[in-house]
Amino acid sequence: MNTVTAPKELQKAGCIAKALGILGDKWTPLLIRELTLCPQNFSDLEKLLVGISPRTLSQRLNMLVEQEIVDKRLYCEHPPRYSYQLTLKGQDLQTILQDMARWSAKYK
Amino acid sequence: MNTVTAPKELQKAGCIAKALGILGDKWTPLLIRELTLCPQNFSDLEKLLVGISPRTLSQRLNMLVEQEIVDKRLYCEHPPRYSYQLTLKGQDLQTILQDMARWSAKYK
Repeated sequence: MNTVTAPKELQKAGCIAKALGILGDKWTPLLIRELTLCPQNFSDLEKLLVGISPRTLSQRLNMLVEQEIVDKRLYCEHPPRYSYQLTLKGQDLQTILQDMARWSAKYK
Repeated sequence: MNTVTAPKELQKAGCIAKALGILGDKWTPLLIRELTLCPQNFSDLEKLLVGISPRTLSQRLNMLVEQEIVDKRLYCEHPPRYSYQLTLKGQDLQTILQDMARWSAKYK
């Protein structure tokens, strides 16, 4: 019976691991949270996430853009300026983060 | 403005970090999943979680009992046998895991 259920288990584990792999980081949940209400540019995010280094912010944003969780848009050509906003995939992830915060607050 | 928003951010970050601290482990999400449908004893869990060592299973169960996510009950006195089941806190966490799996499957 175990040999039959194992692949399903692993598949489920993989799914959860994928989400945890993205969220299990000090800054990523906060970054997603800051993008909930409105798009932000790099320097706004740097100010909002007190203590983050430009290098770390850049790395996290690139990862989130690559994962299609965040959309990077050119909003000014000269000088080139970009804004970052949550995609639908990112908005769905944000709901999970809110549920986690609610769970922790409920059972603190 | 940052000095005003920072504590709130950190509080939220702490809440999310608490949930991630529990879930961000290879076995814990699977263990919670196995306890969703019905209580299980140690040897059942060992069979269901293919590849887990008794030591790791014991550690994870103790952590989950300590966090009041899992309830340990004596169901047979001679010899002493225990069953493990999700508490209400654990059932709420399970909902978040399902949402994560759904999110990963939706956007794979």
